[in-house]
Amino acid sequence: MELEHYFPIWGKLTGAEKVILEQSAVERAAPKGTMLHNGSSDCVGVFLIRSGQLRAFILSDEGKEITIYRLFERDLCLFSASCMMQSIQFDVTIEAEKDSELWVIPTDVYKKLMDTSAVVANYTNQVMASRFSEVMWLVEQIMWKSFDKRLASFLLEESTLDGSDTLRITHDRIAAHMGTAREVVTRMLRYFQEEGMVALTRGAIELKDRKRLQQLSE
Amino acid sequence: MELEHYFPIWGKLTGAEKVILEQSAVERAAPKGTMLHNGSSDCVGVFLIRSGQLRAFILSDEGKEITIYRLFERDLCLFSASCMMQSIQFDVTIEAEKDSELWVIPTDVYKKLMDTSAVVANYTNQVMASRFSEVMWLVEQIMWKSFDKRLASFLLEESTLDGSDTLRITHDRIAAHMGTAREVVTRMLRYFQEEGMVALTRGAIELKDRKRLQQLSE
Repeated sequence: MELEHYFPIWGKLTGAEKVILEQSAVERAAPKGTMLHNGSSDCVGVFLIRSGQLRAFILSDEGKEITIYRLFERDLCLFSASCMMQSIQFDVTIEAEKDSELWVIPTDVYKKLMDTSAVVANYTNQVMASRFSEVMWLVEQIMWKSFDKRLASFLLEESTLDGSDTLRITHDRIAAHMGTAREVVTRMLRYFQEEGMVALTRGAIELKDRKRLQQLSE
Repeated sequence: MELEHYFPIWGKLTGAEKVILEQSAVERAAPKGTMLHNGSSDCVGVFLIRSGQLRAFILSDEGKEITIYRLFERDLCLFSASCMMQSIQFDVTIEAEKDSELWVIPTDVYKKLMDTSAVVANYTNQVMASRFSEVMWLVEQIMWKSFDKRLASFLLEESTLDGSDTLRITHDRIAAHMGTAREVVTRMLRYFQEEGMVALTRGAIELKDRKRLQQLSE
């Protein structure tokens, strides 16, 4: 068990708290595409990411999506245990976006730790504030940034996450991430291609001019 | 000092914590229009609202606004002390929307309480989660609800807050609340008037058919 290397505040926990976490956390493999948490229908526990990449998104009544943030190694996912905080009045869906490994800390175990330990409660607060900040960034993007700028940012971010200039992603998936329609994405990508910023091939988008994409996104 | 009647978790604090709060909290009157917190430029402390109504909003580089939530009696405003949590990476502006009275709890005092008390830390977490929920609601509104529905919701909410069917608010102010342009608001209000849902007079909007506004907003 290497939980101690991944739990960010391990060194600040008491011996008893460490034992509780080690005994209750369950390792889980989540291959790409696994739905790990489905809105309000479950409350499986807090996820601690060991490797891979998770995506948190919200769903409209009509099935439209928008990505609100990603989770990476050492991140803690609170919303898969949202029933432990009655003030959380929204539903988030969590899926594995890459092959991932994680620990599941049962909701009641985490809640008990948080209720009794100021250290755990304050760390939870920091995690919540980080996610909140990401959503506030999203609000600003949606309200004040035009779609071409948002798309340029998205392509650059994906390229960084994948470590490649060639993105294997469909226009449909981009539309789901950004909460828009596929046609809107396709139209803008074609414009980017005409401008020499990207090259579109079957199933892939190649970034040809990162500098201009960067300028556009700013 | 009646702080104890307003601080929601007063009964759960230790005697020492109560003394610290009573000795450090400062009463402040904030007439309507007072700017209480200005983005990242200050970190005055946590506000505990005694009476009145505060508005939290974000500002774009071009000076566009959007209201993200309101605060009422007994609410705690954390973002006026956002420097106490490094994970808060966004700026909120707070103004008194009605004549208000509040206590200001100095940032360092609140931070020390939170760091040492699991009760205070967990309550802070609940407050953060509530605000987070309000912002998530806003994201869903912006992404998935058409402007006519959002405006109908806004008029009904304002009417409830003011306890009146006649709203004394300019189209400019509504536009600032909703993050849009005045022309867009005026055009939609005229449509509502043609449909008999509101009556527009100089400086006021009268709700004439709450039932239809309600249906529209759902």
